[in-house]
Formats: sequence, structure tokens, C-alpha cells
Amino acid sequence: MGFDVEAVRADFPILSREVNGKPLVYLDNGASAQKPQVVIDAITKAYTQEYSNVHRGLHYLSNLATEKYEGVRGIVARFLGAEDETSIIFTSGTTEGINLVAYGWAMENLREGDEIVLSVMEHHANIVPWHFLRERMGVKLVWVDVDVNGDLDPQAVMEACTDRTKLIAVTHMSNVLGTVVDVKTICQAARARAIATMIDGSQASVHMPVNVTDLGCDFYPVTGHKLYGPSGSGAIYIHPDRMAEMRPFIGGGDMIREVHKDEVIYNDAPFKFEAGTPGIVQTIGLGVALDYMMGLGMDNIAAHERHLRDYARERLDGLNWLNVQGHSAGKGAIFSFTLEGAAHAHDISTVLDKKGVAVRAGQHCCGPLMDHMGVTASCRASFGMYNTTDEVDSLVDALELCHKLFA
Amino acid sequence: MGFDVEAVRADFPILSREVNGKPLVYLDNGASAQKPQVVIDAITKAYTQEYSNVHRGLHYLSNLATEKYEGVRGIVARFLGAEDETSIIFTSGTTEGINLVAYGWAMENLREGDEIVLSVMEHHANIVPWHFLRERMGVKLVWVDVDVNGDLDPQAVMEACTDRTKLIAVTHMSNVLGTVVDVKTICQAARARAIATMIDGSQASVHMPVNVTDLGCDFYPVTGHKLYGPSGSGAIYIHPDRMAEMRPFIGGGDMIREVHKDEVIYNDAPFKFEAGTPGIVQTIGLGVALDYMMGLGMDNIAAHERHLRDYARERLDGLNWLNVQGHSAGKGAIFSFTLEGAAHAHDISTVLDKKGVAVRAGQHCCGPLMDHMGVTASCRASFGMYNTTDEVDSLVDALELCHKLFA
Repeated sequence: MGFDVEAVRADFPILSREVNGKPLVYLDNGASAQKPQVVIDAITKAYTQEYSNVHRGLHYLSNLATEKYEGVRGIVARFLGAEDETSIIFTSGTTEGINLVAYGWAMENLREGDEIVLSVMEHHANIVPWHFLRERMGVKLVWVDVDVNGDLDPQAVMEACTDRTKLIAVTHMSNVLGTVVDVKTICQAARARAIATMIDGSQASVHMPVNVTDLGCDFYPVTGHKLYGPSGSGAIYIHPDRMAEMRPFIGGGDMIREVHKDEVIYNDAPFKFEAGTPGIVQTIGLGVALDYMMGLGMDNIAAHERHLRDYARERLDGLNWLNVQGHSAGKGAIFSFTLEGAAHAHDISTVLDKKGVAVRAGQHCCGPLMDHMGVTASCRASFGMYNTTDEVDSLVDALELCHKLFA
Repeated sequence: MGFDVEAVRADFPILSREVNGKPLVYLDNGASAQKPQVVIDAITKAYTQEYSNVHRGLHYLSNLATEKYEGVRGIVARFLGAEDETSIIFTSGTTEGINLVAYGWAMENLREGDEIVLSVMEHHANIVPWHFLRERMGVKLVWVDVDVNGDLDPQAVMEACTDRTKLIAVTHMSNVLGTVVDVKTICQAARARAIATMIDGSQASVHMPVNVTDLGCDFYPVTGHKLYGPSGSGAIYIHPDRMAEMRPFIGGGDMIREVHKDEVIYNDAPFKFEAGTPGIVQTIGLGVALDYMMGLGMDNIAAHERHLRDYARERLDGLNWLNVQGHSAGKGAIFSFTLEGAAHAHDISTVLDKKGVAVRAGQHCCGPLMDHMGVTASCRASFGMYNTTDEVDSLVDALELCHKLFA
């Protein structure tokens, strides 16, 4: 399959460490991914040899840093299948990206009573900015439930739209259920009705090939720290037609052409939407991370993770005291679960941690989904490119210990 | 004087490199500062041994990362003299900090016709967010000029205030002229009249001890990349009374307590103002940078830079074909200048670069000040803690070459 997981593991220095005297089994990739040595080296090199502010200088280091930094725009465009790198805006992550859409596009183009359609499995990053518009402007949020398997029916999304619907905001992959949404069908139906589409790519972009041109979406934010890149990095693809409808969001240097006492003339896109000194070194690191992923091949990464998913699904299905949430056939390798009986998710994660197995416990930034499922908290094991079937076994062993302890 | 500049230089690996075959003379600190090895090492350590997302986990690495990350809040509070670390909000830099004030505080508390008083030497980061409010809400911007030396008279600032003035937004140190503003007098007079104060600390915090409690300001943003810390890091001090008047700015995970389909309950401050996965490793690096500065002693750094300023002022004053902008007696070690005759600032900086001397050329994100001075572009040599009087001599030598070339 052209994917050597042991070679990949060797690229990630943290994976060889122990936790609580046990080898680290890192299954918290849905929250954030670890970083390969090439990314860490790129950061070190940037700071030790090539650091300066970007865009504004004419000296050697400034030109060098600018070239490295701006070079990442084309890498992101290639990674996301954008036709033109000017459709890529750098951000500090998906949260800033979605807020850019909310403040820069929606606040400008929606009116009181206009509607935004959301799925119930959205992450808070793709909910709270829309609640802001509800609170400030009287925009109406319309929710579409998922079915018993955690699948979202594109037709149900379109049926929730009215002539007041201006935006559909849905995730490409659920961070709790692993569900992969057929966003292409949604985006194309929405385009036919002139409804904008905001596809949260935080999870999907990590685990499968993404092509925004093929999807036909208007907004597609991604977050660097989940893409094996530095914290505080990210980007958003914005369709040129929507970009033309936006006003700037963050104000400051670089996003202007001229500033006077009584007038501002803004810069051209994408710079118009990037204010002040950016996350220079993080962005350079993000480019290295995306090159690393594309070097391995997104199809190969996806195939490896399907293999992990199938193996994990089979093993977890064998634990009849474990309730897994999310049974979509084509889901990603993300497993949220509770244990029958009294054990709280936090207690489970603490026991797993003693065995070196890192999982997350809580609401996973998905309040409405937890309400919908009637679950107050769950554990989540989320896999990445460097995980192995042996690690699935470690998870199962640790869960069996939990079951014994708490049964 | 308790400050060994050669020992400090040895802490910054990039300073030993050459540029264009000459030793690097880095005089572009006003744009961004270089990083000491301890900061680079902290970043490497975080990614190779201690990385995870923060706040949301219960596993070992998440707790470790959270402890390191949250520990920085107290370091920033100590660095800025804030009484309580809950007054510190992490940002990606000053630009985001000022936008937080504009969207979170001013948009909520100002009405059409209300006034914001600015000095003419503000950086675009402290101008454009207020222009946004002018464009969107009809807020009025009132400008106060500097005198012929580049000094800003606190009394002139207060005289520009009317009963419609809600905010005074001024820099603590000009990034072009080096002027240090008597912001304490302004803040105390403003407080007596219930006018809020936004003091841009981007430059001042790098070069002198700052105590926000003593100043009595409401908002004091700083930027990590100028403070010898990582790009994409920063913080803002906000007075508790003003924080209570704010609504959240960026929406997403972590800044909420509960999210439902029809309701959001926000988290307590400071978390209410920090959405999504933050700049984890950058913030950890910022803490190390501030500890490094405090270890050297801000008084010692300030004394060293006064010495550099005095030496540079004397040497530059000896070049009668050089026009230095800004003659405030107590200014910082920042020198902007033009050459008499035809040489454009960009040409000068290019010649200096050939000699290894990195300076900035352009408008320095200060359009209104350039308008005020009648200058289209200037060069700027801005010093930091690791610069030396020998480097002043290198600058002067390179300028003399420029003069010969362009005279």
C-alpha cells in the first residue's frame, strides 16, 4: 500500500517517549496532532538562520523570510485543490477562519431574519460565531439532526433551507462520530440556490484528500496543529466570488494600501484579510507539514487510516459493555464511547492514561450533539497517520481493565 | 552596569551569521526581534517531548502542556505589573489585541457620534480598527499632532477630548520617532473623566520597564515577536472594569461554558476572550522570552539602550546630509531618517544591506505620521538589547557610502 507506518512513526520524536512508565499511545489526534522532525527542524532553522518580519523589508533576511512564508500559500492551494493561491488566506486556525467568515462575510451580507443551516454535529467553532450573529443581528439558526448512525442526509440539509437561507455551515468530518458528510452534494445543491457554503475542514483535511474545486464550496477552513503542523497556524480557502463580497475583519498593518486621518484604502485580497505581523514561522512550518503529508500521499494516509478504522471497529464491537457513538459506514478513524455502568468518561480516560493511552474525555466542543445523543460526556480515541493496529490492541486492553475496575 | 552585551549576543544564534558576506548588523528590531537560544530550545522541547492540546484533556501530555501554557499568564502579569493574572488575555499579537478591544469593547460601548482620540504617530494597528468603527458605526476619529521634536503633549490630548470622547488610543513609544509618551498623565486624566485608555505597548514593552497598574491604563497590548519571543504570540492587559463591559470577540471552543441549539453560556474571563486551540507553543515560548528579559533586568536593558541611543544620536548628528525624524529628549533607540538629495529610502536600505546592515524602509505602518511630516518614505534603524556601539559605527560607515553613491 506504499505506506510504511513504522517509518512514519520514526519521523515523530515524541512517539518514542513513555508516559507513566508505558510507551505513549497517542489517540488524541482529533484534538491536536504531533509534529514530525522536519517541521520541528524547519522552525529551528527559521529562528536560528532566517528570521525577520515579512513583506515590509528590503533587506536580505526579510526577503528570505517573505519568500519562505509566501511560498506556503501555493502549498496550501495545492493541498486543498484550489485553482489559485490568492484564494488562500492564512489564519491562526479554523476558529479564526470561521470568525473571518462570520464577521467579514456574514455580518456584511445577512440581515435580521436570515437563516443559517447547521448540522447538530458541528464543533463549537462552527456554532458560536453564528450564535454571535443571532445575538447581535437576529439571524436565525436552523438545525439538521443526524440519523441513528450519525449520518447527515444532504437532502435533509437542503429541505431545511428556505428563501431566507443565506448560508449552510456543516462539517466535512465529525470530530466526535467520525462521520464523513457528502458535502459535495450539499455544495452543488446550495450553489444552484445561491446559498453560500461553509465547510469545516478541520478534521477531514487531516485524513483524506480534499479538493475544494471539486466540492464547489465557498469557504473551507483548516487548522495547522491538526495537520501535523505548528500550533497557531492555519488557512482558509475562500471562493473568489465570496471574497469580493467581504469586508476586512482584522484591521492593522499589511492589509491596507494607504491609511490617512480620514480614509483607509484596503489592500487587494488575500492580503486585505491578513492584518499585522502574521504567524511567520508557524506558517512556514505548516507548509513543511503539508509537503510531508503530500509526500506520503493523502490516498495512502487515508488507506492506512481505513485499515485502522476497520480493525478498531471490529475490536471495539467485540466489547459488549462499550457504547460507541457513530456507526456511519464510511466514517473516519474516530471512536467516541461510554462504558455501561457508572464509570464517568473522565475516570476512564484517567485509567487509560495510566496505561500510556491518551484519549480525550468530555463534550469534545460539541454541545448540541451531546444534547442530541443524550450523553453528558464521552471518551474519544482519534487516530492519525502514525497509529498502528498494535495501538488499537493497547486501547482495548486498557478498556478491559476499566471494565473490570468499574463494573 | 550589570549588562554584558557580548554574553547577550552569544545567546542569539542568528547574530553570528553573515549576510552578503558581511557580519549581520540587525537594526530592524522595530519590525521584529531575533530569538535567544532558550526560546528556540523551549519550542523544540515542547514539540519533541511535551506537546498536546491544552485545557480539554485529562491525559498526562495534555495536563503537562496546559500547565506550561497557563503558567505564562502569571509571567506576563509580572512582566506588565498587572495585579491579577486573570487580567491577561493571550493573543496572536498586538494587532489581534487591539481588534479585540475594538470589536469586544468599543463596538459594544460606543454609539454614532462618539469620539476616539488618537495621536498622529499611531501605528496602523492602532488606527485601522478605529477606522472600521468610523465606517460601520459613524464613530468620529479626533487626531492630536506631535510637536516639531516628535513629542506628544498630554495636555493637548486631554484638550482634544469632549463629552463625546469614549476612548483615547495612543502609543507608549513611537515605532518611527522613538518618542516615549507620558501615558501615565494621560491615563490618570482620562480616568478622572471616565474615558477609557488604549495604550499600544508594542514598542515600549520591549525597551523599558512597564507597570500597567502604575500607568492606570485600561488596555495594554504587547506582541511576542518583538519581545524576543515566537511569531504569532502576544497578550493584552485589560482592566477588570473594562473586561466586565466587553462581549466576546472570537467565538469557538474553550470560551464557552455551554453551547446549545438556541443558547450559549460564555466562560468566565479571561477564557471568555480566548477561543479555540490557542498558540500553545508560541505562548510557552513567549513566557521563556519574558523570563529571559526579566532575568537580564528591564532596567539594565533600558540603560544599555539609552547608551546606544546617546551614541547613535551623537554619530548621526554628525552627518549633516542626514535628516533624522524625531528629536524627543527621552526617545528610545529608534532612528528614522532620509538622505538629502535624490536617494529613495529603498535605495538606501539596499546599499546598507550589501554591507550586512538590516534596516527597514517605507512608511513603517504610520501613514498619518508620514503625511504629517511630509515624508513619503524613510529608513529606520531600530536597536535592541543585543546591539552594540560598534554596530552604530557600521551603520554610519554604510550611510557614508550611501552619501557618496547618491550625492
